[in-house]
Amino acid sequence: MRIAVLGGDGFIGWPTALHLSARGHEVVIVDSLVRRQIDGELDVQSLTPITSPKERRDAWKEVTGAWIELVRLDLATEYEQLKWFLEEWRPDALVHLAEQRAAPYSMKTARHKRYTVDNNTGATHNLLCALVELGLDAHLVHIGTMGVYGYSSVGAPIPEGYLPVSIALPDGEHAEQQILYPANPGSIYHMTKCLDQILFAYYAKNDRLRITDLHQGIVWGTNTPETLRDERLVNRFDYDGDYGTVLNRLLMQAAIGYPLTVHGTGGQTRAFIHIRDSVRCVELALMNPPARGDRVKIFNQMTETHRVRDLAELVAQMTGAEIAHVTNPRNEAAENELVVKNDQFLALGLEPTTLSEGLLAEILEVSKRWAHRVDPRHIPCDSAWTKEIARELEREQRPNLKVVGGAD
Amino acid sequence: MRIAVLGGDGFIGWPTALHLSARGHEVVIVDSLVRRQIDGELDVQSLTPITSPKERRDAWKEVTGAWIELVRLDLATEYEQLKWFLEEWRPDALVHLAEQRAAPYSMKTARHKRYTVDNNTGATHNLLCALVELGLDAHLVHIGTMGVYGYSSVGAPIPEGYLPVSIALPDGEHAEQQILYPANPGSIYHMTKCLDQILFAYYAKNDRLRITDLHQGIVWGTNTPETLRDERLVNRFDYDGDYGTVLNRLLMQAAIGYPLTVHGTGGQTRAFIHIRDSVRCVELALMNPPARGDRVKIFNQMTETHRVRDLAELVAQMTGAEIAHVTNPRNEAAENELVVKNDQFLALGLEPTTLSEGLLAEILEVSKRWAHRVDPRHIPCDSAWTKEIARELEREQRPNLKVVGGAD
Repeated sequence: MRIAVLGGDGFIGWPTALHLSARGHEVVIVDSLVRRQIDGELDVQSLTPITSPKERRDAWKEVTGAWIELVRLDLATEYEQLKWFLEEWRPDALVHLAEQRAAPYSMKTARHKRYTVDNNTGATHNLLCALVELGLDAHLVHIGTMGVYGYSSVGAPIPEGYLPVSIALPDGEHAEQQILYPANPGSIYHMTKCLDQILFAYYAKNDRLRITDLHQGIVWGTNTPETLRDERLVNRFDYDGDYGTVLNRLLMQAAIGYPLTVHGTGGQTRAFIHIRDSVRCVELALMNPPARGDRVKIFNQMTETHRVRDLAELVAQMTGAEIAHVTNPRNEAAENELVVKNDQFLALGLEPTTLSEGLLAEILEVSKRWAHRVDPRHIPCDSAWTKEIARELEREQRPNLKVVGGAD
Repeated sequence: MRIAVLGGDGFIGWPTALHLSARGHEVVIVDSLVRRQIDGELDVQSLTPITSPKERRDAWKEVTGAWIELVRLDLATEYEQLKWFLEEWRPDALVHLAEQRAAPYSMKTARHKRYTVDNNTGATHNLLCALVELGLDAHLVHIGTMGVYGYSSVGAPIPEGYLPVSIALPDGEHAEQQILYPANPGSIYHMTKCLDQILFAYYAKNDRLRITDLHQGIVWGTNTPETLRDERLVNRFDYDGDYGTVLNRLLMQAAIGYPLTVHGTGGQTRAFIHIRDSVRCVELALMNPPARGDRVKIFNQMTETHRVRDLAELVAQMTGAEIAHVTNPRNEAAENELVVKNDQFLALGLEPTTLSEGLLAEILEVSKRWAHRVDPRHIPCDSAWTKEIARELEREQRPNLKVVGGAD
């Protein structure tokens, strides 16, 4: 299968591209490389020393003999070039990761909010529009987020995209329907994935595009079997307050002797998936496309749920690190339950990689090895969801920096 | 109250601005004037000879003594200027009509699809973002569309925005919830109003913005008491296949001896509102804002429903015109029922202007008076929802042009 991985230089995109290449698919990466520019904007770098796009692809060629082409292209702003790419390559499938993917980054300032909306909506809509304009029947697999559901559960497990509801009719009867689960995004970033859902539903209905939306949990881990094959293939590991994900951040903090920062009570329950499973799920979705005319196929791409404070305690027990409860920069419920269905991937043969000391230790090792690359100033999340919260953070986060010391 | 009418030079915007000015509010129009440019793009003009933005505002000043300022500004692309405007004027309320509002126009080509999404989403998001950035607590009243609900009724009357549903819980109990009515847009244009809903819900939740969304039916009529006060105040009357609305188009066709074009069987049931009621509803909504922290307040801004073929038959009876069933350019159900709730505006005192021979005759008169301004080539709707439909239209619409004669 010829597969284009849009955003294929990123945290999930790169190991996805390698996994699909290793499985014998012809892979082409499309990426604007803006994520590397954002490292510059934020003055931060991946904990792991990722190599240049050329060097990592050369290394893959050396190791496997397979060449992964890179087309540098901004989906949101270069529509004509996007069409050129699609016509020239005519991919059988597209994995769409070409979106700004950090909630805190999306909340930093008005500029970041607008960039996230313009970029994500623009990229997704341009892609859909181009597929229709060209009459290209490629299967589009999009990486969404569990965050579209929100975390205020109705008390029933979160289904895979579609919620069965009963609607009262005037005659006293009830109509049973399956509706797209009501959107309840918790940030501008999450909101864009809800906008994507509307775009997908429309294009699947009107133009019969074949679309799969993967509502992914929080990804943890950094290595996959493919990225481990050569040092130069190393995957991105974001530890900073904007792009770092919670479990990876806790392990990194433990590795460098920084207190484990828990937002609020840590009572937030979240869905998780290891990056190895993430890339496998993408391939399973690619192998099982919806038919033309079907509604959007939605999977919950997660394997387990955990409460943040439980994770912090687990890491603290493993490492002896201290836990520091800090002001939550997010505007969200302090505590929530979360039960999620993921039957579809299990039925397709996914064997979940769940939390284990071994895998946690591996991340600790990676963190210790590259600890000298951490700039502690970037560890706190200083992107506040509202102005009120920003003022609280302003008062609070200075002492945290002093705990770490040195960096100011 | 100081009210900014965004898109205040348009079909609804202009009479809204006049109505609010007549009611004693201080009104400022914000408009990019792009709608007048689109007339040029489509090589068509309003049936009524609308005057320049300056001339119509001068006329209003002459007639009433009230001055309506115009700020030329593109909300979607001029964020800094938008902020300047908001800071300089600090309006108490904003009526947001600054969106591309024609479904057929939104479906013409990829360029039109992309323009509609970029413009509408960009304008709405910039506005929300600027209000938060500036900390401005202005009430935002947005003109949405009944089309967000779609026309495949569940069998229950369409509620005002929020649908009560019952969700089965694992223990055999049920949770009762009110959810945003599931989006089911029928065109790219309608889809953008569904995207707006997600933006509104998010900003109302996270930033406590006060937002009202008016899901409007198809507007008919052209004059309001205010536009009738001077010839130079005349409102826009779109008769073309892109921007014209169904009832006005049928009356225009009868006036010039063109067959009444009915798409498909004409079995589509739609919601309608007269433009006089439209502007009154906007004022009622302005006078009854939600509180800070409330969810988005949603009204159904319509007064009655009609089946398209019934309207065509009514006009045919009045005028002796013939009815021509033509291929439906839209990808939609041939027949649908529609029952809509509009209790909120009725409770606020709206006295519906319903279909009457008198008001229909008035539109006929306007059409006859300006019949020489009609270019019959622009009457058919040649904007097809899919490529398959485009091919059908290609085969069919030529004969229609011959019936009219002259223009080719």
